[in-house]
Amino acid sequence: MIAKNMQDLVNNSSTIRAMFEEGKRLKKLYGEDKVFDFSLGNPNVQAPKQVEDAISELIKEYPSPILHGYMNNSGYEFVREKIADHINQKQGTDLAAENIVMTVGAAGGLNVICKTLLDPGDEVVVFRPYFGEYRAYVSNVGGKLIEVSSNSDTFYPDLEDLEKKISSKTKMLIINTPNNPTGVVYPEDFIIDLCSLLEAKQKEYQRQIYLISDEPYRELVYDGLFVPYLTKYYKNTIVAYSYSKSLSLPGERIGYLVIPKEVEDAGEVCAGINVATRILGFVNAPSLMQLVVAKCLNAKVNIEFYEKNRNKLYEGLRDIGFECIKPQGAFYLFMKSPMENEVDFCELAKKHNILMVAGSSFSSPGYVRLAYCTSYETICNALPAFKALAKECGVGK
Amino acid sequence: MIAKNMQDLVNNSSTIRAMFEEGKRLKKLYGEDKVFDFSLGNPNVQAPKQVEDAISELIKEYPSPILHGYMNNSGYEFVREKIADHINQKQGTDLAAENIVMTVGAAGGLNVICKTLLDPGDEVVVFRPYFGEYRAYVSNVGGKLIEVSSNSDTFYPDLEDLEKKISSKTKMLIINTPNNPTGVVYPEDFIIDLCSLLEAKQKEYQRQIYLISDEPYRELVYDGLFVPYLTKYYKNTIVAYSYSKSLSLPGERIGYLVIPKEVEDAGEVCAGINVATRILGFVNAPSLMQLVVAKCLNAKVNIEFYEKNRNKLYEGLRDIGFECIKPQGAFYLFMKSPMENEVDFCELAKKHNILMVAGSSFSSPGYVRLAYCTSYETICNALPAFKALAKECGVGK
Repeated sequence: MIAKNMQDLVNNSSTIRAMFEEGKRLKKLYGEDKVFDFSLGNPNVQAPKQVEDAISELIKEYPSPILHGYMNNSGYEFVREKIADHINQKQGTDLAAENIVMTVGAAGGLNVICKTLLDPGDEVVVFRPYFGEYRAYVSNVGGKLIEVSSNSDTFYPDLEDLEKKISSKTKMLIINTPNNPTGVVYPEDFIIDLCSLLEAKQKEYQRQIYLISDEPYRELVYDGLFVPYLTKYYKNTIVAYSYSKSLSLPGERIGYLVIPKEVEDAGEVCAGINVATRILGFVNAPSLMQLVVAKCLNAKVNIEFYEKNRNKLYEGLRDIGFECIKPQGAFYLFMKSPMENEVDFCELAKKHNILMVAGSSFSSPGYVRLAYCTSYETICNALPAFKALAKECGVGK
Repeated sequence: MIAKNMQDLVNNSSTIRAMFEEGKRLKKLYGEDKVFDFSLGNPNVQAPKQVEDAISELIKEYPSPILHGYMNNSGYEFVREKIADHINQKQGTDLAAENIVMTVGAAGGLNVICKTLLDPGDEVVVFRPYFGEYRAYVSNVGGKLIEVSSNSDTFYPDLEDLEKKISSKTKMLIINTPNNPTGVVYPEDFIIDLCSLLEAKQKEYQRQIYLISDEPYRELVYDGLFVPYLTKYYKNTIVAYSYSKSLSLPGERIGYLVIPKEVEDAGEVCAGINVATRILGFVNAPSLMQLVVAKCLNAKVNIEFYEKNRNKLYEGLRDIGFECIKPQGAFYLFMKSPMENEVDFCELAKKHNILMVAGSSFSSPGYVRLAYCTSYETICNALPAFKALAKECGVGK
């Protein structure tokens, strides 16, 4: 018998799995191109050519025990230095190798941070809607998730609600911009207000409140939008980054944490992160991929691909009469469900061969998430199906 | 401030770090080849040529979103199938893809198993001496480690002590053969006795007791010794395997779990493992390396390299007069400390530029561990230093 703690998680996961299996069934029945699968955040864009070039070079450059060998649990020193320099150039920060820890993706990085910072009962604030996995990451170490609502027009977190929710037990906040599932990028004035609230709360409770910036979508922004680098606005900021989207390497599990020297007890935090990386069983970020990303710092996936998809899907859905705000980054569109229960709406959509994720998975019922990291053709072909779905729900003219 | 839970771990880890730094200091002072570092279990043998060939082929064979993409959290189906077939051929088992889960090394696999099986307070039995990380893996999920002593002549676990230590709270045992730190391989008759004791205890407590076989050293055995495949001796066996040593890929973090269909609630256990892989932040084993190992199933590092090292070191130390048993596998030699406190002995050894790990790190004071995955020259050059050390401790004639 598995752990009691795990049984609910397995049952919930069966629901998602059932949906995935349903997708496979539909695709078999109607053909790949007749099923419009917007349920998965799986990048559909090639990794930049530099990645494959880097791999070819590396297997020639490095003798094998080094190429695939152990290193410090925090990662290769020179890789961390290169990444620090790269961020300094782009963001005007003042980072060194010791401020970077290589991680098994952002998911690995977030778990390492939770293990390092949280004692059982410590509270972690998240903003609705949020990536559902945060709940598990926090609960893995006995922390407690505290949800803060967002403005329903902009999806910016509601700072008045945040004010009320921060307590003497608050140890960290998780912020995710560009956001999954809304596609929203928080503007600088919002960030400034948020950070000044956090400063005040730190003083009030005489306790450090860490701001964890989960940034797998940092590079995926459209219309030249500015994404503030949060370490510059609030000292106790730790960044969790991933190359899953920016280099289309989601299966390789490679990312890093940034712990600037301005973070209180930065040395202790870094030492804790190093130990947590080891004892959680990550041991270190995959060695070859560490060396690959160090060679691809200026490489980037084709963002125009996602932007074209965004425009087509957003304009198409709006023209049909659906309510949604225009995504500014990431590859998700958060749409208001025209039916009261969005789970029913997702079910109805399936009859039109459209697969979406219910907002309740992000703690925001009444909405659905569409991941548009599909092919452009999928979006074009899906629009008539959305039109038929709209008609059935009484949406549009 | 970091979590209270983490503070002791960070302090302990500083001791190991201090030793590592001391090693670096000595090497700087006396030269790389004048310091005899037997402290680290870092393979010093090249990965087989097939690994590099496989990488070169794969970046040509697979279009990039597949090569580096997401897959089921349990790993690529066809990779799991190939591994299952390979084990079936070698061990006469009856495994299929669904019985294999790809993991981020054996360390990742063990954490996933602990998360899947253990509720807080559940007991996990380990045999002294044991790999110290087990303590952290079990404690990560609130489990309790129970130590069982070993026969001091053979280092086989003491079954009488085990009988007493298994309780109604025992959920699993961890077994590690070939063993770190002793290099011992448990013979078949011992395995049979162990398994029959476990069967009896399962009946007595009407509760499943899982045997977790941690097997990173399975292929590293000498003198053609037979290493029993434990799933064939006890139904509730789960195997945690790693390619770190067999393919010299320790930095790549690639391994797998075997959950045979004979395991009670195997379906639920596999579902739990799949979810645990996701929520612990591993998400999946690195994708390129999954494909690499599937192409290298019959490849193996040069084991003669380690065997030559073993012979030289074991015979050298025995001739000098140190007490140790001949390692049969892995690349560790566990030597009796000629001084009562083995930590003092390690300190004294440092004066002879010899670095070793104290047995207390493996919960077995009175011994020291020597990792002979060094160069052959290191061993040859170290023997005169060991001789001088022996003289200082009054060892030998």
